[in-house]
Order: sequence, then C-alpha cells, then structure tokens
Amino acid sequence: MSSSFGTLFRVSTFGESHCKAVGVIIDGCPPGLELTEADIQPQLNRRRPGQSVLSTDRQEADQVVILSGTENGRTLGTPIALQVANKDQRPHDYGDMQDVPRPSHADYTYQKKYGIRASSGGGRSSARETIGTVASGAIAAKILKKKCDIDIIAWVSSVGEIDSVPPNANTITREMVDASLIRCPDQAAAQKMELCVAGLKQEGDSVGGTISCVIRNVPAGLGEPTFEKLEAKLAQAMLAIPATKGFEIGSGFAGTRLRGSQHNDSFVQKSGRLGTETNRSGGIQGGISNGEPIILRIAFKPPATIALPQKSVDFSGKSVVLEAKGRHDPCVVPRAVPIVEGMAALVILDMMLRQEARKALQFK
Amino acid sequence: MSSSFGTLFRVSTFGESHCKAVGVIIDGCPPGLELTEADIQPQLNRRRPGQSVLSTDRQEADQVVILSGTENGRTLGTPIALQVANKDQRPHDYGDMQDVPRPSHADYTYQKKYGIRASSGGGRSSARETIGTVASGAIAAKILKKKCDIDIIAWVSSVGEIDSVPPNANTITREMVDASLIRCPDQAAAQKMELCVAGLKQEGDSVGGTISCVIRNVPAGLGEPTFEKLEAKLAQAMLAIPATKGFEIGSGFAGTRLRGSQHNDSFVQKSGRLGTETNRSGGIQGGISNGEPIILRIAFKPPATIALPQKSVDFSGKSVVLEAKGRHDPCVVPRAVPIVEGMAALVILDMMLRQEARKALQFK
Amino acid sequence: MSSSFGTLFRVSTFGESHCKAVGVIIDGCPPGLELTEADIQPQLNRRRPGQSVLSTDRQEADQVVILSGTENGRTLGTPIALQVANKDQRPHDYGDMQDVPRPSHADYTYQKKYGIRASSGGGRSSARETIGTVASGAIAAKILKKKCDIDIIAWVSSVGEIDSVPPNANTITREMVDASLIRCPDQAAAQKMELCVAGLKQEGDSVGGTISCVIRNVPAGLGEPTFEKLEAKLAQAMLAIPATKGFEIGSGFAGTRLRGSQHNDSFVQKSGRLGTETNRSGGIQGGISNGEPIILRIAFKPPATIALPQKSVDFSGKSVVLEAKGRHDPCVVPRAVPIVEGMAALVILDMMLRQEARKALQFK
Amino acid sequence: MSSSFGTLFRVSTFGESHCKAVGVIIDGCPPGLELTEADIQPQLNRRRPGQSVLSTDRQEADQVVILSGTENGRTLGTPIALQVANKDQRPHDYGDMQDVPRPSHADYTYQKKYGIRASSGGGRSSARETIGTVASGAIAAKILKKKCDIDIIAWVSSVGEIDSVPPNANTITREMVDASLIRCPDQAAAQKMELCVAGLKQEGDSVGGTISCVIRNVPAGLGEPTFEKLEAKLAQAMLAIPATKGFEIGSGFAGTRLRGSQHNDSFVQKSGRLGTETNRSGGIQGGISNGEPIILRIAFKPPATIALPQKSVDFSGKSVVLEAKGRHDPCVVPRAVPIVEGMAALVILDMMLRQEARKALQFK
Repeated sequence: MSSSFGTLFRVSTFGESHCKAVGVIIDGCPPGLELTEADIQPQLNRRRPGQSVLSTDRQEADQVVILSGTENGRTLGTPIALQVANKDQRPHDYGDMQDVPRPSHADYTYQKKYGIRASSGGGRSSARETIGTVASGAIAAKILKKKCDIDIIAWVSSVGEIDSVPPNANTITREMVDASLIRCPDQAAAQKMELCVAGLKQEGDSVGGTISCVIRNVPAGLGEPTFEKLEAKLAQAMLAIPATKGFEIGSGFAGTRLRGSQHNDSFVQKSGRLGTETNRSGGIQGGISNGEPIILRIAFKPPATIALPQKSVDFSGKSVVLEAKGRHDPCVVPRAVPIVEGMAALVILDMMLRQEARKALQFK
Repeated sequence: MSSSFGTLFRVSTFGESHCKAVGVIIDGCPPGLELTEADIQPQLNRRRPGQSVLSTDRQEADQVVILSGTENGRTLGTPIALQVANKDQRPHDYGDMQDVPRPSHADYTYQKKYGIRASSGGGRSSARETIGTVASGAIAAKILKKKCDIDIIAWVSSVGEIDSVPPNANTITREMVDASLIRCPDQAAAQKMELCVAGLKQEGDSVGGTISCVIRNVPAGLGEPTFEKLEAKLAQAMLAIPATKGFEIGSGFAGTRLRGSQHNDSFVQKSGRLGTETNRSGGIQGGISNGEPIILRIAFKPPATIALPQKSVDFSGKSVVLEAKGRHDPCVVPRAVPIVEGMAALVILDMMLRQEARKALQFK
Repeated sequence: MSSSFGTLFRVSTFGESHCKAVGVIIDGCPPGLELTEADIQPQLNRRRPGQSVLSTDRQEADQVVILSGTENGRTLGTPIALQVANKDQRPHDYGDMQDVPRPSHADYTYQKKYGIRASSGGGRSSARETIGTVASGAIAAKILKKKCDIDIIAWVSSVGEIDSVPPNANTITREMVDASLIRCPDQAAAQKMELCVAGLKQEGDSVGGTISCVIRNVPAGLGEPTFEKLEAKLAQAMLAIPATKGFEIGSGFAGTRLRGSQHNDSFVQKSGRLGTETNRSGGIQGGISNGEPIILRIAFKPPATIALPQKSVDFSGKSVVLEAKGRHDPCVVPRAVPIVEGMAALVILDMMLRQEARKALQFK
Repeated sequence: MSSSFGTLFRVSTFGESHCKAVGVIIDGCPPGLELTEADIQPQLNRRRPGQSVLSTDRQEADQVVILSGTENGRTLGTPIALQVANKDQRPHDYGDMQDVPRPSHADYTYQKKYGIRASSGGGRSSARETIGTVASGAIAAKILKKKCDIDIIAWVSSVGEIDSVPPNANTITREMVDASLIRCPDQAAAQKMELCVAGLKQEGDSVGGTISCVIRNVPAGLGEPTFEKLEAKLAQAMLAIPATKGFEIGSGFAGTRLRGSQHNDSFVQKSGRLGTETNRSGGIQGGISNGEPIILRIAFKPPATIALPQKSVDFSGKSVVLEAKGRHDPCVVPRAVPIVEGMAALVILDMMLRQEARKALQFK
C-alpha cells in the first residue's frame, strides 16, 4: 500500500468498499482558510453513486464530516481528517464470487499481493477509495482559487466511439459541463453519449471514454524536474485513478505525427508576460508550467463489471461462467470528472507550495 | 528540483549539459551483485549522441566510472556513485540565444522558475540528464534478470505518420530491435522511418514518434495501490523523460472505444498459474501486476531544436527570428529506447523490493 | 505539520485536544495478522488520563475503533484507520488564557508558526496526539512479538531527584513495571516517587523524570546508515514525544567519560552467534543492531502546567500573573511509558521491513 | 542504506573510506547563491585528518570540487554535486583484521546486514562519510547567514572527565572555539583536555567527550510537529554522526530533576518580540523554534580503535587478541565540531524552506 500522495500538501486515504468508513487525512493544509463541510460536499455529490439514471442504481449519500484540523470554521494548519460513513458495510451481492476472480477486476491481483482480500465489493480497489481524493481535492481547489484564481475544469470528451467537439479551454465552466448528465459540454455529442450509456445499462454491458481537463491561470514556474516534472506527477495522479489506461498532455499522441516546424509553440508577447501563440506543449515545457492553460486527456476503460455472462476460471483453475449481480455503472466517466479535478488540484497545490519555498529563499 | 526517484532502490541524478560531469547515486542496491562498468556501458552506448547517421553529429563517448559502492567487482550495499565526464564543458554554439527563449524548449520556464539558467545548451533540462537514468536502470535490469529472469525490451513503434506492425511481445529481443538504426523491429517500417529521419536531418526539421515497451516475467503482486499503482509509477517515470507527451498501458486510448464485454480479459489456467486469455489490461489490474507481460506505449514530440528559421520574441517581448546552429537529433526515439528501458527497470525493481518486504512479514 | 512517520510501516496521525476525534492511519501493515480492538486497547489504557491517583483527575475512556483495513478480525494489508472520540470537545477550562501564552507550552510557537491556534487545551501539541502512536505501536509490537519474539519494555527510571536501581534488562517484564502506579520496577524507589508525585499534586507543582527502555531479541542487521541509523531514528522518535529533552543509547553521556579500553565491547561466542561481553554500545554498532538488547533512556521535563501562580506576559507584552485551572499531571512519566514503547515498536518494525526487502534480493 | 536527508534541501551522500571518492548531491539549493569551493573548504579543513597533533597522523587534503549546479559562481537551483577524492584508495593497514570484527566498530553489523563488507577501513561506516555532511552543511550555513543572520557555533564542552565552563551562548564565535586545538573556548579546560588527549595518543588509548552547539537568530516558527519536531530532527541528525551516544536540548537530563515551577521559562517582552527570561526550553517549545537560541549537547563515545591489545573472537568464534596498526584519533570531538555544525545547518535550512512554503499560502 502507498496511500499517501504529495510532499507538502500530503493526503493519506483509507477505507474499503464495505468497512465502517472511508476518508482521508490532509497534512500540510495552509492555516487560516475558511473551511466547512459545505466546501467539500458538492464535489462528493458529483462523484456519488446513484446521482443520475446513467450511473449505478446503488445509492450512497456520502456525507462528509470534518473530524479535526479546523476550529470555528477555519483551518489550524494541523492535519484535517475527513470521513464518510459506508452505508452498506457488509452486503451479500458479491458473495458467490469469492472463489472466482472477476475478469479485469483486482480480485486476482489483490489475492496474489496480500494473500487475503476483502470478501465483498472491490475492497480497497473499489472506486469508493476516490472519495478521499475528491474531498481533499476540493480543499486544494478552494485554496488555488482564492490565492491564484486557478480554475480546474474537467469534462467528458468521448464515450466509446462518440467523440465531441472540444470546448474553448479558456471559457469552459463547471456549469457548462454539468448541463448534461454525461458531463460533456458538446450538447449534440452529449445526447448521443447518454443514449449509448442508457442502452448499455439495459443490455448489462459497459463502455469506456475519455475525460479532458484544463487548469487555467497556473503561474509559470511550477513543477520539480527531473523526476517530478509537472506532467510526470499529473500522469501519476491520473493513472492512480481506477480504470485509467492512458494520459496525454498537450498534443499527446497526435503530436508525435507532426514535424518540429509544425509543433513548436512560438513565443509572443501577451498582456504583461510572454506567452505562446499555440499551446501544443499543453502549458508545460521542460516539466515546468509556462503560464498557458494546462491541458490533459485521460483514458478510462469500460467498467469490468457487466451483467452479461462471462467465461472465466476459479482460483483453482476450474472453468466457470460468471454473472454479476451487483449494481454498477455502465460508464464511469461522468462520475470520474470530479476525481480528475481533485487529482489535478492536489498536484498543482503541492507544486505551488514547493515553488513558494524556493522563491522565498532565492538570491537575486 | 526533485532529482530523486524510488523508495527502496533510490536514484538521485545530477548534472547539466555543460558542467564538469553528470551522474547518479544509487541508494539501496542489493549487496553482493557482481558489477563493473561493463554492465552499464552498453546501454549508455545505445543512448549516446553521434552513434549513427540518424542522430546528432555531436560526439560524446559517455564513459561511465564507478566511484563508490563496489569492491572487487561486487556491490557492498552502500551507495553506488556513477559519473560520466562532460566532454564539451562550455561550448559556444548556443551563445547568441541567451536573450531569446527557444520555442518549445525549457529556457523560458527555467528562467521563470529559478530566476537564472544555464547559459548554454539545455542545462539541467538537457537530455544528458538521462544518463543517470540509463546507467542506474542498467543495474536495476541486471538484478531483475538475475533474480527473476525479467526482460525489459523497448522499441520504436512509430515515427511521424509511419506506423509499424507490432512484434510478438513474448519473443521480441534487444537484438531484433537493434537490427535497424531506427530501432524498429518491423524491417519494412524501419526502412521508411530511416529515410524519413535522414530526409528531415537534411531539411533541418524534426519529427515525433512513439516507443513501445514490454516487461516480461514480472511476478504477480507488484505495485502499491492506491497512489503508487504500478501503472501510475510507470506513467510518472515515462513522463519524466524529456519530450514525452503521452502514456498508455495495455489497451490505452483505443480501449476506451470498446465495450466491457469486448475488453475484459478472461482468466484461464496457464502452466502453474492463472493467466488471462487476452491482455488488454497490459499486465496490470487494480494497480498490481498480474503475471502477464506489461505493455506500455510512450509518445515523444518532435525535437524542438530545428535548423529552420522560427519566429519568436526575446525575453523583453521584441520579435526575433531564430536559427539554431547546434547539432541536434531530428528524431529522439532511437536514442530514447534505452531511457524507456531504464525507467521501467527502476520502477519494477523498487516495487519488487517493497513487495518482498511485505511477503517476508505476511501472516498466513 | 509532518504527522507521518515510517517508510514501509507508515503511520499518519490526526487530531487536537478538543476536536471530534483523534486517530491514526497505518499504511503498510502486513496482511493476515489477527487484529481486533482488544489488541490495541490495553496500551491505550496505560496511557489514558485519570488511570490513577498520580495522574490528572480528568477522565477519558479512550476507546479505540478500527474503521478500515481488517475483515473478520484479520488485516487486509490495506490502510488501517483507528479512531478515538474526544469526550470533551470544547471545554472552557482554558478560556481565559487565550491572550496569554502559557510558559513553556506551545501556545506561543503555534501562534507564530500558523498565525492561528486552537482556542483551548494544547490543540495539536496536546499529548492526546500520542494516542495515534500508542495505538499503532501496539499493532507494530504484536507483529514483532509474533514474528521474532521481540519484547519492548519501558519503565520509569527516575522521578526528579529520585533515581532507581536498574532492573535486569534481560528479564524485566511489563508486569514488573506495572506493579507500581509510577511504573518503576525498583519498589523502594517507586514508593518514594509516588510520595513525591502525590505531594506535588497537592502543591500544584510538577516534576520531571526519565524513562528507560529495552528492546530484546532484535536480530542483527536492522538500521539504515547513514542518516537513518537505528539510534538516529530512535532518537527522532523519542524526541517527537511531547516534553522530552534528551536521549541516550547504551553508555550515553556517562560513556563519554570513559577511555576506549574501558568502553569497547569485546566480542564473545554466544549460543549460535557472536555477541558482546558488555553492552555499552546499547545493542547498536555503526547504526545497525548487533543482536544485543537495545537500551535507551529518555529525559522528560516537568509538565509546564502547574497550579502555582506564574509571572508572564500576554501576546501584546503586558505583564500578567497566570494561574492554571485545568486538571493536569504532576509528572508525565508513568503515562509516557506506553508512548515510548509505541515509538520504539514503530521504528523497529519499519527497519525490519526494510532489511527484509534487502535480504530478499541480496546476492550471495 | 538511507543516505539522504532533508525534505526540500535534500542531501544524498556516497563513498567509503577507500573507494575512488566521497561526496554529496544537494537537491533543492536555492538558486542565485554565490558559491565556489572556497565557501566549502574551510569547514572541510576543520574536519580533515592530520590537522593537528591531537588527531590522527594520517593526512588527507580533502579538496572539494563542485561538479554541477553552478555557473559563473552562482547556483542554478539544480542539483549541486560535490566530490572529494580519496588519497588512499586501497591501503593495507587493516588487512589482517578481515576475519576479526573489531570491538565496538561496525565490522560485525555491516557483515550481518549486507553479507559483505569493505575489506579495509570502516568502509561506509568510516567518518569519511561525514565529508558530505560538512560540505553540504557549509552551503546551508552560508544561506542561513545571508538570509537570516543565523549563526551556528559548536564547541567541545568536555573531554573524558574534564568539563569546561560554558561560554556565553550569545557571543561565542568560531574564532573563540578555534583558539585551542581541542576547540574548547574555556582555555583552562582546553589545556587540560589537550594534555589528556596527547597522553592517550602516546598510550594508544582513546577518550570520549561532548560537543555543545548554539544556533542563534532562528526565527520563531520552524519545526514540523508532530514527528518532525525541530528537536526530533536535530536528534536524528546528531545521532546519525558516527560515535554519538546521546543528545540533549535545553535543560536536557538535568532538567528532569527540577520542578515545573523551577523549570518553566517565563515570557518577557524583548526588543520587538516576546522572548523568555530563562531558556531551559533550549529555544524550542512544542517542537517549534521560539526565537531564543537553540542549545544542544551531543555525547561522543571514545573512539573504538585503540593501539592497546584487546581480547575478542573472530567471525568463527575463535578467541583472538587484536592490535590495531592504523593511525587513528584518540578523541574525535575536535574534528566533530564542524560535523555537528553541518548537521544543524541542514536541519534548520530544510525547516525554514518548509515554513516559508506555509507562510506563502497562509490565509490571514
């Protein structure tokens, strides 16, 4: 296990799908910040199961409680412990799967790694673990907004074969994203995506998708070369989200097909600073932010849990046919939008703290 | 700066493009390993500039010296310091660019981050920094091969618009990769790639490409969920390589277009263990290796340094036209193959050490 | 804040004196361990306030709850979250001290560091924070006992001017320690100490003391030179306990007065291993355990909270006379015994995990 | 091995007593600092062997070279690699001791830990490893002096049974310390100490001693509770120095004998800030600096290498009589003074960087 992330703004999460509670400790939160549960709950609501007809029918309120680290609604600079109770602490939906590792789940690998695993749900590999990321990310995002006016906006950019027209990264808002249940700001594509997902829910199948994310107003200078380049930590953060299979920054894989003379971002004078005419770099050069919007794209595989029968073998190698009985999401991307935003906020705030330390003791 | 990587097998690199030397300290290398410079030099040779007509004409021998940590050709378990002298310690090729941040280089961001930057070459952002990764990765790879018969093989899978037929991941060898200068095992594609790169060198332009990598014989159980999932650390490692813009594991972005019923990897009985019939998971499930080959793909942008004139502005915002005079690579992917292999080895060995600690104190 | 400790067995604590709860996450606990609250509560009981006439009259039950990381009474290898509710969440005993930093408390330094501080009690600097250490230390100690038969026994060795005769470090037991309320196994000294402490409680004054600790059956080879020598991590751990002012290993300060010919520990053959005739090294040589008992001594200052009036100034610099109204311990050492044991267990287990990783990949 | 120290100003050392070189990488040094070898060499000269009749007759020039991280005499913010060549790379003085672990050395424990050890000298456990600490500490101290006027002064406070009168901690200077070869500012005591050490050198014996250290002008607010309290990191740093057996902060062990009413440091108004009338806290309260001088004391055991014959056993358990032939220090404390200063500087600067990060993002 390595359930901690960050150097100066450091989060440590805990909890399995069916234990008493899941949560997170945030160590290194700046003191004096106004903070109550109301700052955190909205992003948890965007993540919670049962929020729309497109997601699982399983309902969890996911109410967050602040246990420590604040007084009279302000942070003390001490560790902030956040907790969300698990409603279903020991369900039986998954019982008969105990001897059979579910295809493309973590049952097999957890068993091999630990010699034991949670008897129901995904245990620690469940997406419930991301509650800690979303909750702590909401705090990080509030700090970034108040101190630097930084915006972090993620949206669904594709579902299965349905691609969407990219929004203007400079003006996209969370409201525009949430205008559709699927969280895609291209309304025409959103309709198709929603139909696709609703159909798959009926069929008992699932589908993958991609999420794009823009981080605006990041000052130039964030990122810690060489091994903690800004894009490297963002890549780690995004690939730590369950079900992710790929990561792109700026021009990504498409950029590999271009020539340097086509790909280079020329510098131009912008209001009060140098900027770049194009942004194929995705806001990062040499591992360090350059002041342009940071643009990411993340690949999510189709959820492994489907209601259709699947051939597999049990742990002893005997052939079986599996049929899942739980209630699951046919497509994770709408609920993963706040997770991507949370991870991005954790990375940016940690890097900002590290750069502030450097600036404070820099010699002219 | 964050020039260290790894928890138990921890490397710390140093050096700029034109200082006295570049190098690396390896802390946590298992004791008793037979080790001399001859174990390390071959991978450095595959990385060094001037090795073929396809790369820069700049020549560097990049001879490694072991300064500490071994005696009589065996490791002591103490830090191993490796060093490569810089031949050109203060060249003048880059001199007139001092006031002009080169497009899509790190000149601008280093200046903003540190308030100062190396006056020539890329300084710390130069690919010379990767010598430490390649050298330490060669040691990690030797340990993985001797202890677990693990193979790590990377190859060029595309150059610009030229894609190649994927090799058999179970049988591809380093010799098959090195059969072409471009390091693509599909000989037909390799020829086209080499022509393309040679042409761009003439033109003074550059092109991007992708590298694929397979890691074979990894035991099930490696990876530290949640924030240090195996794919998350591999993603960080690969995005820490200069010029990378994307990362995929297993089915990657293409997998997002599939349904769960198409994407899931069914378990089957293999010789003495469970395996999967297909490998869209890319050898990792829930952040933990499952015993199948780990398959990665990494995107490299076209090198930013080109000989063609480019419009830009200087630090004061005044328009200029830049013409690079240095000798540079038209395409980095052939030389980046050992860097990808090195990074992969560092991640896998560190995860193996962490899992061995767990296994040793596990209760049955 | 840096509320985490350990590399592979890593604990992260949270909580102030008067927030909703205090607790700890343990990341990296070996899987398969039988574990319930009953394994943890006894050490918390030895630490809790109000346990005897010698300690504060304030009562806290300090009942621990396991929130995550176990199933059916066995650890899953996932993070274990432990929580103890605070009974008094917002008391008013301390109210009128808000403007006056209490002498030799952390009021002043917390205010300077964070620009804000908890309005009552010690906030994060309260000894309630040590609940996380004691609880996680109890788990570490259980693992060490089951895997290696390691015993960790601490006892009060002095109170004020009252010194005690050292027990036989090879045979001292927790029962012998707990035979007196003051937790000193020298019964004659214990009586004097108890009289002294009872008298000071009456007077409203306090007194310091020392705790000694032996760690038996530690295998040779633990400790990570150079900066994480075994004694260095033990020193950090012990000085992280509130109210500590000094640390000794083996011969300590007294050893500085000896000659090498008097101080050196000669090697002798012991049953099946080399051992040393004397143990001035305190079980550690060159930062690494040598198989002999590890012997520590820790200095605790007199508690800063006393009922006697004290001259001081308020934050604005105006002279005041302070009189504490809370209920406090006249001497912390009896209650600090399980804290010392907990810290020692955390250090030893973490070092054991790190050494096991090395041994697993060592070459012969 | 764990040869790194620090979070934001992070040093990683390498080297054994008889390999090619010893050195250190400093990651996180603030950019723009004027820095050449001349800033580092003086402290290395105070540490080097053969500097006076009181130390070993072995001569090493210990000339430091900066390999990376600076240009035109200023730091770039990139890793600074420092190197000192070993003059004697494979001596034979120690050859016949190979089968016999020297009493109170690290031969036995290194062999048990690593299954192999350096064949001569102390290998990694040699005090040559401290060159990295002294060199990097000199840089840290320069930054602390230039940015905050912080002074770090250590001196020998006792040798064997010879105690000295404590100097005025507010006015003691490095010149006053270096006025005697033994580095004790109490001249009467210094004479006795020097006679004692010279006599023991003749006899082939050794003796222990203590070093005291004051750190002046540290701003209030440094230290990261709970596990990285300022005194806890100082304790770790000091116990990581070879041959140390104890650590005290402020009143130390003597303070345990006092009552709270005697020990508490009353606050008083000082010029522009609150201060304390007495300083039994040693400049730290609750793990955080309070603005008063930080006062430490460190215990050093007598050097284990003596010329007198000693009874021991070889690795097979056979009795032998050892007679050391190398040239060694009869007392390490004079040469350890710059090591203590270096360690202190590393801790304080790292803590200052961490606090600056917090202050930059604090909310009012």
